[in-house]
Amino acid sequence: MLKYMICAIVVGAKKSTSSKYNGSYDYDLIVIGGGSAGLACAKEAVLNGARVACLDYVKPTPTLGTKWGVGGTCVNVGCIPKKLMHQASLLGEAVHEAAAYGWNVDDKIKPDWNKLVQSVQNHIKSVNWVTRVDLRDKKVEYINGLGSFVDSHTLLAKIKSGERTITAQTFVIAVGGRPRYPDIPGAVEYGITSDDLFSLEREPGKTLVVGAGYIGLECAGFLKGLGYEPTVMVRSIVLRGFDQQMAELVAASMEERGIPFLRKSVPLSVEKQDDGKLLVKYKNVETGEEAEDVFDTVLWAIGRKGLVDDLNLPNAGVTVQKDKIPVDSQEATNVANIYAVGDIIYGKPELTPVAVLAGRLLARRLYGGATQRMDYKDVATTVFTPLEYACVGLSEEDAVKEYGADEIEVFHGYYKPTEFFIPQKSVRYCYLKAVAERHGDQRVYGLHYIGPVAGEVIQGFAAALKSGLTINTLINTVGIHPTTAEEFTRLAITKRSGLDPTPASCCS
Amino acid sequence: MLKYMICAIVVGAKKSTSSKYNGSYDYDLIVIGGGSAGLACAKEAVLNGARVACLDYVKPTPTLGTKWGVGGTCVNVGCIPKKLMHQASLLGEAVHEAAAYGWNVDDKIKPDWNKLVQSVQNHIKSVNWVTRVDLRDKKVEYINGLGSFVDSHTLLAKIKSGERTITAQTFVIAVGGRPRYPDIPGAVEYGITSDDLFSLEREPGKTLVVGAGYIGLECAGFLKGLGYEPTVMVRSIVLRGFDQQMAELVAASMEERGIPFLRKSVPLSVEKQDDGKLLVKYKNVETGEEAEDVFDTVLWAIGRKGLVDDLNLPNAGVTVQKDKIPVDSQEATNVANIYAVGDIIYGKPELTPVAVLAGRLLARRLYGGATQRMDYKDVATTVFTPLEYACVGLSEEDAVKEYGADEIEVFHGYYKPTEFFIPQKSVRYCYLKAVAERHGDQRVYGLHYIGPVAGEVIQGFAAALKSGLTINTLINTVGIHPTTAEEFTRLAITKRSGLDPTPASCCS
Repeated sequence: MLKYMICAIVVGAKKSTSSKYNGSYDYDLIVIGGGSAGLACAKEAVLNGARVACLDYVKPTPTLGTKWGVGGTCVNVGCIPKKLMHQASLLGEAVHEAAAYGWNVDDKIKPDWNKLVQSVQNHIKSVNWVTRVDLRDKKVEYINGLGSFVDSHTLLAKIKSGERTITAQTFVIAVGGRPRYPDIPGAVEYGITSDDLFSLEREPGKTLVVGAGYIGLECAGFLKGLGYEPTVMVRSIVLRGFDQQMAELVAASMEERGIPFLRKSVPLSVEKQDDGKLLVKYKNVETGEEAEDVFDTVLWAIGRKGLVDDLNLPNAGVTVQKDKIPVDSQEATNVANIYAVGDIIYGKPELTPVAVLAGRLLARRLYGGATQRMDYKDVATTVFTPLEYACVGLSEEDAVKEYGADEIEVFHGYYKPTEFFIPQKSVRYCYLKAVAERHGDQRVYGLHYIGPVAGEVIQGFAAALKSGLTINTLINTVGIHPTTAEEFTRLAITKRSGLDPTPASCCS
Repeated sequence: MLKYMICAIVVGAKKSTSSKYNGSYDYDLIVIGGGSAGLACAKEAVLNGARVACLDYVKPTPTLGTKWGVGGTCVNVGCIPKKLMHQASLLGEAVHEAAAYGWNVDDKIKPDWNKLVQSVQNHIKSVNWVTRVDLRDKKVEYINGLGSFVDSHTLLAKIKSGERTITAQTFVIAVGGRPRYPDIPGAVEYGITSDDLFSLEREPGKTLVVGAGYIGLECAGFLKGLGYEPTVMVRSIVLRGFDQQMAELVAASMEERGIPFLRKSVPLSVEKQDDGKLLVKYKNVETGEEAEDVFDTVLWAIGRKGLVDDLNLPNAGVTVQKDKIPVDSQEATNVANIYAVGDIIYGKPELTPVAVLAGRLLARRLYGGATQRMDYKDVATTVFTPLEYACVGLSEEDAVKEYGADEIEVFHGYYKPTEFFIPQKSVRYCYLKAVAERHGDQRVYGLHYIGPVAGEVIQGFAAALKSGLTINTLINTVGIHPTTAEEFTRLAITKRSGLDPTPASCCS
């Protein structure tokens, strides 16, 4: 009881824009959005004594009407199904490798798309269920409804049975985002997005993936691994925001596997042919040249849009910037009792663990008397392409921008994973680099790795970077042999030296 | 030229026990042993201007006469073939998983032992060849001969064509070790060791693995994965020297996969039956009860012995301790011009990357004017059992011993790898823990992880530990989702709290 009173005082200390309420709200906190950020925030707030409701609502996709349960993008149409399909694709590769290692397996294999989708969806449904139970156990009131602000303390929730008006002292907006569609004829009628792909009821077949951000590349990657024929259409650059040397190596490794990249191209229209296939007309943005091709599936992966439209934010006075909500270092919007976390906030990494930690820390500050803020710097991430890419810290170009080319040192190397030899897998794109301070302690600014299990490799180094890793510490860390992660401890060649960064000997 | 002269002065500064030479030796340095430590040291010494010879000789195994080329244990009969057979075993698992993910693969598969051995041996031979070329390129004189000391500056090398006497200012002993045989009837006649296993010309079949150190467990693990029937015989504890909670979880995960452990047991004799099979008699060391069973193969994995016997060390005056050579923090033996690195040194981790780094640093100190010593603390390592185990830093019991139980905090948790759900793989032993300072900054003393790709997971954390990782930094490192490595960033339950360390929700 005491805890709650202390919290109430803390909360009460914040200034509200509305004065028509005098503290007797339905809830202390309403979290709008039941994804990673919202759920983490809601659960932590309850743990710290707040009365919390969490609204969650999924609008069906325009083309196929796909919808899903609680848990948000990650669980339903993001990281989880993506990783499972990536795994399915890697397991297909593994079958071929098994044959090379002597297993008497017939490696002329085909995937069963429907079985895969069913397995993936079953797993998702089990996570949805665990999430619901978790919310009940933790006494978060779950409302399956679409919320829009009436004023800064009042929300109108469209629920199954009609409408419901609810009030709260504090709001956390965590509605996340959804994929964008291009504004061209046929885009919405015939194209799908990652919101549909993981539950698609037919084989994707020959697929045009429009967009070369991480979502586009990951989808193209696992589709190829599953035996379909993806083509990637790129308007400008691959993996915008990532180190461009690494991005181009990733693209090259995908091209080596037989995924064509249509560069400098944008789609013009999608038409359905009599045979049911999709005719896509597109043009080269540099030459203006037009071309066309026929696909079974067109997948838009051109970016994601923050879901601000339904919130009626003007009623609450919350400022919006490019479909997103700008927040300060406390995740506060311009309205004192309204916060935002997760993919909906402007200019921060759109990643589940970022959303979870930011949501949790916000709840602790609001109701637990904590002061710790979310640190959005040096967040590690992984692109789950067939050969994965993971990084933490600065890209080489950002390091150059921040410190100047003369003040950074880049250590790099190609390497040959031991396991790749027997099945004769290509090692051409197995590459890693460390971007560091040139002088002084040679503090590491960024680490980049292309190869197997990249996320598993980089996670620990992310903790190292946060602990102040230097090049001296890195190369004096004893390797674990034989792993690919140990290659970071063997980095000895600088780009500046011009020396050949191809592998040293194996074990000496 | 200048560089070399400076080196000579540095070397000359060291006191020699022998006075009958006045500086005109055949070589500046003779490295005895062409394994990881010796080769790394020899190559680095040449790079720093020294004239170097490297002796390498492999005595055939007693039972099968197995021998191999340059490169030492790791390349020929250690990490490399072990990791490849482990990989073959994992790929067998992957075929079953592929079926669960929807691939139309017939998962009633069998391994082709001879094809696997051939593939592994081909890879080893290619590494041998690369190693020879590397030595030639780097101008290390390679002598295929068995060396024994005449005095502290003179070596007698038994080579193919007879004998050769060579002298050097400095010696580095890097002869490594070989597996021990138990002193029981039939051990040498009928048993094999890891020196034979990776080139065994017949299927191992039902195999008794005697010894539960990491070599025994790894061999038993991949034999099971390849469809054979290993049994592990353990005299006292599993994975001596490792955290015992983790060790027992590893053993339990192997038992769950159908590998029986004969606890508290020692072998008494091995006899060959008329049908060619091996009858092993053994007894329980606690009850004294005797038993017997029949196997196709008996594999000794009871420890390794340093190869001091052939060196004739008394002639050089070098002290020996339990088949090993004690050295100081500069890797110097008790004789001023004789050093030792790698598995032959007493009381240090027997690991390839340790050997490589120690050998390289020694050469830099001897010939490059460097002063940096090898840091044998917080060396990460991995046990490549079917479910792998990796760790860095202190075990829980060592932390208790060093700091007291009241002064440490252990954070732990079970976790469920996303990829395990669809093929319904057991998650019972997926567990990790962080052993840390209880108060203050909560500096991390040790990290322990059981799960997939453990070496890849722990390597970066080893760099983090070396950078002064604290619990606060660890739990504020943003995870990479979904990975298993991110579980370290989610550690929230302490053993002291008594709370249930089973998994939290998936993505919030």
